[in-house]
Amino acid sequence: MKKFKLKELAKIFNCAYEGDGEVVITGVASLEKAKNGDISFFESPKYREFLEKTNASAVIIPLEEKFDRLPVLKAKNPKLIFAEVLNLFFEPYLPKPGIHPSASVSSKAKIGKNVSIGAYCYIGDYVEIGDNCIIFPLVSIYPWVKIGEETIIHSLVSIREKSVIGNKVIIHNGAVIGSDGFGYVRKEDGCYKKIPQTGIVVIEDEVEIGANTAIDRATIGETIIRKGTKIDNLVQIAHNVEIGENSVLAGQVGIAGSTKIGKETIFGGQVGIADHVKIGERVIAAAKTGITKDVPNNSFIAGIPHTDIKTWRKIYACLPQLYDLIKEVKNLKSKIEELEKKLKNTD
Amino acid sequence: MKKFKLKELAKIFNCAYEGDGEVVITGVASLEKAKNGDISFFESPKYREFLEKTNASAVIIPLEEKFDRLPVLKAKNPKLIFAEVLNLFFEPYLPKPGIHPSASVSSKAKIGKNVSIGAYCYIGDYVEIGDNCIIFPLVSIYPWVKIGEETIIHSLVSIREKSVIGNKVIIHNGAVIGSDGFGYVRKEDGCYKKIPQTGIVVIEDEVEIGANTAIDRATIGETIIRKGTKIDNLVQIAHNVEIGENSVLAGQVGIAGSTKIGKETIFGGQVGIADHVKIGERVIAAAKTGITKDVPNNSFIAGIPHTDIKTWRKIYACLPQLYDLIKEVKNLKSKIEELEKKLKNTD
Amino acid sequence: MKKFKLKELAKIFNCAYEGDGEVVITGVASLEKAKNGDISFFESPKYREFLEKTNASAVIIPLEEKFDRLPVLKAKNPKLIFAEVLNLFFEPYLPKPGIHPSASVSSKAKIGKNVSIGAYCYIGDYVEIGDNCIIFPLVSIYPWVKIGEETIIHSLVSIREKSVIGNKVIIHNGAVIGSDGFGYVRKEDGCYKKIPQTGIVVIEDEVEIGANTAIDRATIGETIIRKGTKIDNLVQIAHNVEIGENSVLAGQVGIAGSTKIGKETIFGGQVGIADHVKIGERVIAAAKTGITKDVPNNSFIAGIPHTDIKTWRKIYACLPQLYDLIKEVKNLKSKIEELEKKLKNTD
Repeated sequence: MKKFKLKELAKIFNCAYEGDGEVVITGVASLEKAKNGDISFFESPKYREFLEKTNASAVIIPLEEKFDRLPVLKAKNPKLIFAEVLNLFFEPYLPKPGIHPSASVSSKAKIGKNVSIGAYCYIGDYVEIGDNCIIFPLVSIYPWVKIGEETIIHSLVSIREKSVIGNKVIIHNGAVIGSDGFGYVRKEDGCYKKIPQTGIVVIEDEVEIGANTAIDRATIGETIIRKGTKIDNLVQIAHNVEIGENSVLAGQVGIAGSTKIGKETIFGGQVGIADHVKIGERVIAAAKTGITKDVPNNSFIAGIPHTDIKTWRKIYACLPQLYDLIKEVKNLKSKIEELEKKLKNTD
Repeated sequence: MKKFKLKELAKIFNCAYEGDGEVVITGVASLEKAKNGDISFFESPKYREFLEKTNASAVIIPLEEKFDRLPVLKAKNPKLIFAEVLNLFFEPYLPKPGIHPSASVSSKAKIGKNVSIGAYCYIGDYVEIGDNCIIFPLVSIYPWVKIGEETIIHSLVSIREKSVIGNKVIIHNGAVIGSDGFGYVRKEDGCYKKIPQTGIVVIEDEVEIGANTAIDRATIGETIIRKGTKIDNLVQIAHNVEIGENSVLAGQVGIAGSTKIGKETIFGGQVGIADHVKIGERVIAAAKTGITKDVPNNSFIAGIPHTDIKTWRKIYACLPQLYDLIKEVKNLKSKIEELEKKLKNTD
Repeated sequence: MKKFKLKELAKIFNCAYEGDGEVVITGVASLEKAKNGDISFFESPKYREFLEKTNASAVIIPLEEKFDRLPVLKAKNPKLIFAEVLNLFFEPYLPKPGIHPSASVSSKAKIGKNVSIGAYCYIGDYVEIGDNCIIFPLVSIYPWVKIGEETIIHSLVSIREKSVIGNKVIIHNGAVIGSDGFGYVRKEDGCYKKIPQTGIVVIEDEVEIGANTAIDRATIGETIIRKGTKIDNLVQIAHNVEIGENSVLAGQVGIAGSTKIGKETIFGGQVGIADHVKIGERVIAAAKTGITKDVPNNSFIAGIPHTDIKTWRKIYACLPQLYDLIKEVKNLKSKIEELEKKLKNTD
C-alpha cells in the first residue's frame, strides 16, 4: 500500500498545504465516502455539506477557500490535483509487453518495441503499430492500419482497413473504427445501390473513444477526429465527419454525414446532429439537442430543433401555462364580445 | 416433439382448466399465429378480437374471464403461466460444460464445476468463475473479475478488470462491463486530462444485460446494478451510477455519471438521465424522456425536460392549437383597440 | 493506377458526354476536393458554387444541366453513375477464399465453395454458409445458423442460434443478430420472470446492417428484415419487429417490440418507435421523431409524440413567440378590465 504524508504530496504537486502536514494519506475517495487515511477534493459550494461532514484525513480545496477543520492542500484547480493524486495511488491494469503465442500477426505487419498484443488478436497485412502500444486480447486490425505510439486498444475493438490512429489514443471495448459509411443511391425501382466507401478514418493523438462507439470511414477522403477530443460510449459518427480539437461528445451522441465541428465543443448525451452542418468552435449543446442547421462559434444551444439556450429555457418555462392560456384567451374573447355588444347598445 | 394434455398442464402449473382436458398441446404461439395443437394466452381486452378468431387448441385466460369456445387454463397471471409453458416446450441452446482447447485460461484463474468456456475465450489472471457458468466463444474477461454461479455470458462480451458479477446473470453479445468512466479535468490550455477510473462495476444476481450495452466502472468506488434489474440493448450506464432492484431499462436508455435510481423503476426506450440526479422508487419515465432533476417516488414522467405525465399530455394536446391561438390573440388585440377608440369617442 | 478516357467511361456506363472526350480520368472526388485527373458529380443546385470552382477534370451532371467549362458525362441519375465510377476505380479490401487454420469450424457445419473464414472464427454445429461468403476474423456464429451466398460478415459480429441470413447481405463489425428479446412477466413480489425467447431473426437478401446494431430474435416466430433494407450503426430492433423492403434506418434508431413497418420507409437518426405500432409504406420520419401510434402510408412525420411534418413545423415556428404571447394576453386582460370598468361608469 502506498503512503504519503500530506506535506510530501504538497511537494510532489507543488501546492501549499495548511494544517498538519504530517498526516498520512493512504488512499483517495469522494467527500461522502472518504474514511480515515483518505484524501478527497472540494470544488463547488454545491457540495459544502459533504465537506463539513467528511471523514477524510485531508482535502484538496481551491486557493481562495477557507476551511480549517482538516488539513488541506490548496490548488488553483483542485480537480486537476485530485486526478494527479489518483494517478499516484492507482495502478491501472495493463498487460505486459509481448506478443501472445495465439495472436495472428501478419508477417508483413511492422510491430514496434515493447508492444503488447493479446491472445487471439488478428493483425492484418501491412499493419504498422508504434512502440509501447497495448493491444488487449481479441482485437481485429484489418490490413494497412497505422497506429502511433503508446496507444491502448481494448478487447473486441475492430479497426478497419487503412485507418490511421495517432499516439496516446485510447479505444475502449467494442468500438468500431472505419466501418462503411451509410451511403446509397436510390434507383428508379425503389432499390438502393451501395456507394463504395473508399475513404478512411483518421484519429489524431490523445483522442479517447468509448465502448461500442462507431466511427465510419469516409465515402471519399477522411473522417477526422482531431487531437485531444474525448468521445464517450455508444456514439455514432458518420462518414466524412470532422471533429475539431479538444471536443467532448457525451454518450449516445449521433452525428450524420459530412458535418464539420469546430474545436473545444461540448455535446451532452444523446445529442443528434444533421448531415452537412457546420458547427463553430466552443459550441455547447445541452443533452438531447437536435441540431438541424449551422451553429455559430460560442453558441450554447438546446431543443429539437435547436435554438439558443435562453430562448429554449423561456419556452419550456412557458409551456405548462399553455393550457390555461388557451382557456384565458377564450374567456377574453367572450368578454370582448360582451363589451362589443354593450357598446353597440350604448351607441 | 413434446406433448401434454391440457389437464396435465393444469396439474403441472397448478391451474384450473375448463372444457376438454384431453386436448393435446404440442406447441405455443400467439393468438394470431396459433394453429391446431398450440396453446396461446389472452390477457388484455385489446386483443379480444384475436381471441375470438384464434386457431389455438387452448388458451390461458385470466380467472375472471368468460370464454367457452375453446378449452382454457385459468390463471391469476396468464402471461406468467404462458412463460412457464414456453419454458416447458422450448429448450434454449446452451453449450455443454467443458473448456474448449483453444480457450486461453490463466493458470491463476479459479474455474468452478460444470463450467462451459467456449473457443477463443480469454480468461485473465485471478479470475473466479462459479459453478455451472456458461461462457460462449470469444469472450474477454480481464484479470480479477469475479463471476457467481449459473451466469451466462454470450460471445464477444468484454468484462473489464475487477468487475464483480453475481449469480444467474445473463449478459448478451457485445455488452461491455467495466469500461473506463468518462471523466476528465479541463486544463487552462483547453486540453483535457484523464481522471483515472479506479473503481469497479458490481452486477448483482439475476440481472440481465442486453446486446451492445455499456456499463462504465466507477471513478472511485462502484457502479452498481442491483438484483433482478433488466437492461435492454444499447443502453449506456456511466460511472458511479446505482440502479435499484427490479428496475427495467428499455433500449438505448442513457444514464449520466453518479445518478442514483431507486428500485422498481421503469424507463422507456431512449430515455436520457442527467448526471448526479436522484430518482425515487417505482418511477416510470415514458420513452424519450429527458430527466434533468431529482424525481420523487412513484412519479410518472415524460417530456424534455421531464414533467409530470399529465402536465405533459395537456401540453402536447394544446400545442397544435398554438398557431391559431397566436392569430386569435392578434385578432382580439385589434378588437380591443377598436373598442378603446369607440369608448374614447363615447367619452 | 487505373486510367480511363472520358469517352471510355461514357461507353461503359452508356452515357452521353460533352466536351473533350479524350481527357484522362484517374480518380474520383467531391467537387470541393477534386484535383486534376478526377471526375466528380453534380446533382443539386445547392452545390452550384462548388461546381463553378471545381478543379475536377470532368463532372457527371444531370441530363438537363447546362455547363460547358469542363468536359461532362450526362446522366439521368448522376449519383448512380458516380457510384458506378467509384466501383470501377476502387477495390474494396476483402480477404481471399479459404478457412484460416485457427478458425473453429464444426465438423457438422456445411461450408460452400470459395468461402473465406478468418482467424479465430467460431462456426457452430449445423451452420450452413453458402458459396462465396466472406467471414472476417473473430466472428461468432452459433449453431443452426443459415447464411446464403455472397454474404459478407465483418469482425466481431455475433449471429445467434438459428438465425437465417440471405444472399448478398453485409453485416458490419460488432453487430448482434438474434440476441434474446426483452420480455419479462412481472410477478407479485415485484421480480421479473424471463419469457423464453424461442423465435429467430430472418435477414433477407441485400440487407446491410451497420456497426454495433442489435436485432433481437422473436419471442415466438420471427423478427424479419425484408429484402434490400439498409440499417445504419447502433440501431436497436426489438423482438418480433418486421421491416418492409427497401427501407432505410439511420443511426441510433430504436424500434420496440412487435412493431410492423411497411416497405420503402425512411427513418432519420435517433427516431424511436413504440411497441405494437403499424407503420405504413413510404412513411418518412424526421430525425428524433418519437412514434407512438399507427402511421398511415405516405406520411411525413416529426416531433415527440409524432405529428404531421407541416403541423410540427407550424408549432416550432410558433414556440419562440409563446413568452410574448403570455405577456400580450395579460396585457389584453388588463385592457379589457379597464374597458369593462369604463363601460360600467358609462352605464
